[in-house]
Amino acid sequence: MTADHYRSATTAGVFITFEGGEGAGKSTQIRHLERRLVEGGRRVLVTREPGGSQFAEAVRDVLLSPDTAPLSPLASALAFYAARADHLDAKIRPALASGAVVLCDRFSDSTRAYQGAAGGVDAAILDSIDKIAVGATQPDLTILLDLDPAIGLARAQTRRVTAQSGAFLTADAFEGRQLEFHQKLRQGFLALASAEAGRFAVVDAFRNELAIADDIWQIVSDRFLTAPRETR
Amino acid sequence: MTADHYRSATTAGVFITFEGGEGAGKSTQIRHLERRLVEGGRRVLVTREPGGSQFAEAVRDVLLSPDTAPLSPLASALAFYAARADHLDAKIRPALASGAVVLCDRFSDSTRAYQGAAGGVDAAILDSIDKIAVGATQPDLTILLDLDPAIGLARAQTRRVTAQSGAFLTADAFEGRQLEFHQKLRQGFLALASAEAGRFAVVDAFRNELAIADDIWQIVSDRFLTAPRETR
Repeated sequence: MTADHYRSATTAGVFITFEGGEGAGKSTQIRHLERRLVEGGRRVLVTREPGGSQFAEAVRDVLLSPDTAPLSPLASALAFYAARADHLDAKIRPALASGAVVLCDRFSDSTRAYQGAAGGVDAAILDSIDKIAVGATQPDLTILLDLDPAIGLARAQTRRVTAQSGAFLTADAFEGRQLEFHQKLRQGFLALASAEAGRFAVVDAFRNELAIADDIWQIVSDRFLTAPRETR
Repeated sequence: MTADHYRSATTAGVFITFEGGEGAGKSTQIRHLERRLVEGGRRVLVTREPGGSQFAEAVRDVLLSPDTAPLSPLASALAFYAARADHLDAKIRPALASGAVVLCDRFSDSTRAYQGAAGGVDAAILDSIDKIAVGATQPDLTILLDLDPAIGLARAQTRRVTAQSGAFLTADAFEGRQLEFHQKLRQGFLALASAEAGRFAVVDAFRNELAIADDIWQIVSDRFLTAPRETR
């Protein structure tokens, strides 16, 4: 397959986000997808949240510092959206405008799941902030790596729990990190996927790494890498 | 006058914000008002924005650092509101609940004037974020120290331009710091005062410091320090 096969090769880029709880394998699967896209001749930007731009990384550092007094879920959500607005300006929108595929490890759905479903911030409030901060730059596809939290947490404990996931947690969760919180989180992600079934693809993450990568490649190929004969 | 004379002595506190361009004398006038309130037996919290809580001060430092790439007015507004939400949680609401008078050097109206009127972010967007982040904790009184920017900027140049004001400026304004920007700012503040005449008191800041302090004391006394006979 060459770059000629990409439906949107001459148009705007493709924005794909990866979501899921801790230990679901997001960064691993992003690396697999990146490799296949690059082999297919596509330019790819891999980025992450919270963070991704200079200001956003600084916000991330502040939020993650054990010296920072914990923020309320609402203040956290606003901070993530401020960082997100800058991340969009500084990296995501320019990359999409240049025709790249953007692979982002966590995005708005993490705020909706962590601060919303698990943290108690009203979904309508988060939607309202999202409309302002993200606007039309919504993901074209969101891969939800779904996993029983009991398994994900055990996996996450075998490495150092990533700062990335930690940043989305409230202070209580940092301390307790209870299974209950992560179960709310999973239900939150699944509810989001169910409400926007057109944007989401839910992938069972309790399988072999390469089998999951094959599934994701199939989903991405089907949606964005249509061969010419199919579109004519 | 003793604490007994305060109408709201046994109820919630009073939230007073100071707004205006650079060199208008906000911090000087806050000190005068604080002194008179304390002499009258009132507990006072003096605070400032951007900043005022641990997270908010960290955001301030990042935004003010010359090493930070400039943010768009919208991303800046979201960052100020994230900081404001935490400032409210950590300091302002607890102080008001304890019955204190809170004197805050800049608040939401600075975001409306700098990022809104002068920076181009739509007023309805800022109102929508304000409703989420500030909610019911609106200032009881906002003192707008109004001054011709040509005078204010000259005053500000005689000292180091405060980081406080600088943090509200976009990169362009940081570099140019043009009179035009500050004229838009002044018009923005005056338009806000006109739209919410009940909350605002516009004070001519091109006068003797003590004359201004007397005016402000009169305004505050009339609104919040009513003698018992007037309320019975």
